Amino acid sequence: MNEAGKVKTVEQLAALIGGRVSGDAQTGIDYVASVGSASAGAVAFVEDQKALESAQDCAASALIVPDGSGERARKIAQKVPAIIEASKPKLAFALIGTILHPRKLREPLIHPTAVVAPGANIALTVYIGPHVSIGENSTIGPGTRIEAGVVVGDNVAIGIDCVLHPNVTLYDEVTIGDNVVLHAGVCVGADGFGYVRDDVGYHKFPQIGTVVIEDDVELGAYSCVDRAALGQTRIGRGTKIDNLVHVGHNCNIGERVVIAAQTGISGSVIIEDDVVIGGQVGFGDHVRVHSGAVIGSKAGVLPGKIVRPGVWWGIPIQPLDEYKRLNAHLSRLPQMREDIKKLRARLQELEEKLSEGTPSLP
Amino acid sequence: MNEAGKVKTVEQLAALIGGRVSGDAQTGIDYVASVGSASAGAVAFVEDQKALESAQDCAASALIVPDGSGERARKIAQKVPAIIEASKPKLAFALIGTILHPRKLREPLIHPTAVVAPGANIALTVYIGPHVSIGENSTIGPGTRIEAGVVVGDNVAIGIDCVLHPNVTLYDEVTIGDNVVLHAGVCVGADGFGYVRDDVGYHKFPQIGTVVIEDDVELGAYSCVDRAALGQTRIGRGTKIDNLVHVGHNCNIGERVVIAAQTGISGSVIIEDDVVIGGQVGFGDHVRVHSGAVIGSKAGVLPGKIVRPGVWWGIPIQPLDEYKRLNAHLSRLPQMREDIKKLRARLQELEEKLSEGTPSLP
Amino acid sequence: MNEAGKVKTVEQLAALIGGRVSGDAQTGIDYVASVGSASAGAVAFVEDQKALESAQDCAASALIVPDGSGERARKIAQKVPAIIEASKPKLAFALIGTILHPRKLREPLIHPTAVVAPGANIALTVYIGPHVSIGENSTIGPGTRIEAGVVVGDNVAIGIDCVLHPNVTLYDEVTIGDNVVLHAGVCVGADGFGYVRDDVGYHKFPQIGTVVIEDDVELGAYSCVDRAALGQTRIGRGTKIDNLVHVGHNCNIGERVVIAAQTGISGSVIIEDDVVIGGQVGFGDHVRVHSGAVIGSKAGVLPGKIVRPGVWWGIPIQPLDEYKRLNAHLSRLPQMREDIKKLRARLQELEEKLSEGTPSLP
Repeated sequence: MNEAGKVKTVEQLAALIGGRVSGDAQTGIDYVASVGSASAGAVAFVEDQKALESAQDCAASALIVPDGSGERARKIAQKVPAIIEASKPKLAFALIGTILHPRKLREPLIHPTAVVAPGANIALTVYIGPHVSIGENSTIGPGTRIEAGVVVGDNVAIGIDCVLHPNVTLYDEVTIGDNVVLHAGVCVGADGFGYVRDDVGYHKFPQIGTVVIEDDVELGAYSCVDRAALGQTRIGRGTKIDNLVHVGHNCNIGERVVIAAQTGISGSVIIEDDVVIGGQVGFGDHVRVHSGAVIGSKAGVLPGKIVRPGVWWGIPIQPLDEYKRLNAHLSRLPQMREDIKKLRARLQELEEKLSEGTPSLP
Repeated sequence: MNEAGKVKTVEQLAALIGGRVSGDAQTGIDYVASVGSASAGAVAFVEDQKALESAQDCAASALIVPDGSGERARKIAQKVPAIIEASKPKLAFALIGTILHPRKLREPLIHPTAVVAPGANIALTVYIGPHVSIGENSTIGPGTRIEAGVVVGDNVAIGIDCVLHPNVTLYDEVTIGDNVVLHAGVCVGADGFGYVRDDVGYHKFPQIGTVVIEDDVELGAYSCVDRAALGQTRIGRGTKIDNLVHVGHNCNIGERVVIAAQTGISGSVIIEDDVVIGGQVGFGDHVRVHSGAVIGSKAGVLPGKIVRPGVWWGIPIQPLDEYKRLNAHLSRLPQMREDIKKLRARLQELEEKLSEGTPSLP
Repeated sequence: MNEAGKVKTVEQLAALIGGRVSGDAQTGIDYVASVGSASAGAVAFVEDQKALESAQDCAASALIVPDGSGERARKIAQKVPAIIEASKPKLAFALIGTILHPRKLREPLIHPTAVVAPGANIALTVYIGPHVSIGENSTIGPGTRIEAGVVVGDNVAIGIDCVLHPNVTLYDEVTIGDNVVLHAGVCVGADGFGYVRDDVGYHKFPQIGTVVIEDDVELGAYSCVDRAALGQTRIGRGTKIDNLVHVGHNCNIGERVVIAAQTGISGSVIIEDDVVIGGQVGFGDHVRVHSGAVIGSKAGVLPGKIVRPGVWWGIPIQPLDEYKRLNAHLSRLPQMREDIKKLRARLQELEEKLSEGTPSLP
């Protein structure tokens, strides 16, 4: 439940998401919940007609349903005083969630235990929590919140309205856009993994480039984006990355890309806008993934591969259709062996028959 | 070796684990060691009769051996003054290890550099190390030890006798039971990975639920347990999780589950009690794993899959037996191709013979 | 670009790497860059004759080229005033990078917010940043730099000229050699994952051993090296490990081993010198990998496996050649099914022919 004083009427919420209300439009709503757990004060949602059935015992104060199903909803969910029809119920629910449960607000503060370099440039409305360190010449935009234990290096630029959760590390010279959320322990700008071998061992290839994280990006806990060797590693605007993901040096990740947990991306990979990538996927270096590609969880992409639009699967990746076809073939392997055995037997019989028969022929 | 003053006699230790002593029961023991590296003051163990042979040169002061093999042990391990027979030597050794090498003790303290919110409720016997932050309304139970750099959010409940190793992050409103061990950098309660897409990009689905970590859980370094979208993510009592594991929003992990390193669990997965899961396993969302299932390392479980008791393997998972059978078939592929080739040749020969022969038949 | 005052002449740089200069040897160089992005003051490199063509528009002040191609380089890269011939251009470039872009220097300091135990032994030339904790009896060698938020336990030994990036955690009693680089959040010495099961649940197997990280090792962000149960976990001299790698208890990793991101190594694995391991590889316990082995990304190595020299691939691993052969066989599966079908049809025809023909035979 949200903090006191944040109650909205169903009418107000419906107006914000362009929904149509039936029932008591003045019902007060102060939190979002699932159909099963909602009680008085909650708004819930059902995504489609089929799911409506599950709302029979729903105890929410309002229910968001698909356009055109308001009447049916009122019949099924008889305990719910107000129905909101919306073209995309889940999206409407998400937006209402943002309104009823806004990000935690912190009063502007530089905590006395924080260590801020004299040359750092901190906007007035910034929150800097306990035990934070901010390096020389770094700038932090208005409205940004930096939680306890975060370490910001020198010459770092952080935009407005960002949230850096505890223990994030930003190395020197990286750039973070506006409205970026970095979850606990995100690491931006560590050295890329590049060495040159000679007789005595490995020598570090220069790792002196930068990282740019664009606006509206969210990075999950302990995800790592390495700095470029030379040049820049980039995470494009609106891209969302889950926990424990590795992005190697010089990668160029486009806008609105989604990457699930524990995926690893080697150096110099290009991922174009709107690509969707599952969890635990691995990319060799210099891969290029085109817009429109969807890569299933646990897939493996060989170095240098160009991934065209479509759904991809497996190690190494192949189109999902081919993958399924191959798997169907695999499942028939025992049958094939049986078939070969039978053919051999029949052939043998024929051969024997024929060797009995033939002498008399000529 | 443990700290001075912790010496126990073989007799005392044997009594604690219900073992039977032969030899010098007054021998002093102050640490546990492996058979190969043990010296005076150490107790070692051998798990079974076969392993007893390896104890010939053992220099331990005591040796734990399986019930009934004491006499043989005394003959083989002649340098060892005391033999303890136990029904489960490895378990006995582990328990003695806990006695001789107890967890590090810290005197109760709130380190002057720690930042504790005025409304936090800290038991008297708590240790709070340097640079720790504790948020508003959070409670910490007696005997709990919180190491340097840990960040505890608001409204967090931590039970008694827990250990939070350095740089752990607990987000707001999560609950940690009693006797829980969180290794360095564990992150509990970061937002789940849920978005709703529209034309302009991704909107965050509400991530306003909680996490409950029950008693006797141990989580490895940098493992992440995301908060529920709505509702609760749960790690059941006595469950042990290795390093760098990802547990998604709304997962319900049962009691005494074991999960090895780098495994990733998508949202809303249910894992029942006593399941055993290897390393680098991946789970799609809404999987249910039944009690009695064992899932091998690197396996992949498709979304929505119900995993019955038994041993599972591969991507996607299949019963280990089937997996082995399929692999056997695969290894015979070259032979199958050869077989087909031979059949074709024999058939051709027959056909030729027959086309020579048949004209004369009718 | 590096800090002012670090300009070197081409002549000086060439002398340092044993290169031969043609053109203006007095040209000043102050940073390294790629051929495409270099401008005045930069040195770039091309690795081989083929790549030389790409240097046509190169605006660097110097270009490193392979031995014997100086003359051709001067013809192609006409804007570049100085050419340096070197036997290994990439290695020469890396070494020059180290000279022009040395590691960040920090003046010796113990930051007033750092908490250093009275019994710790800190060399005079050490930098200890904000919010660092150093435990009892730990020693830190000259020239070592410890960035903000690092936590060093008790009885830890850290050598000379190391860099510990922010939020690293070293548990008690681990040993770090000289010239070691630990990136953000590296965790050394957390408990290994070992339990003994009985009727009520899991009991911790003693995790009281240590970790030794030898000289010249580099560990990537959030990589974890667990302490040994009994004995020692070791990372050998000159070994380089990428981000988010897990090294289990009692592993013995040799010298100059390379391990890419997100690889997981179970307990008691031995990896000999000079092995190369890709990303997301998984090792079961008690594996031994011999010098000369190369293991491809995403491979899986079964427990107890002995991996001989050569290139390995797949889950479970097999020699790359065999893997390719098997894959070729797999791709022919549809054809094999077709072949079997055709054989069956031909055989049937023969059988029918023969059954028509045979009655007349006897």
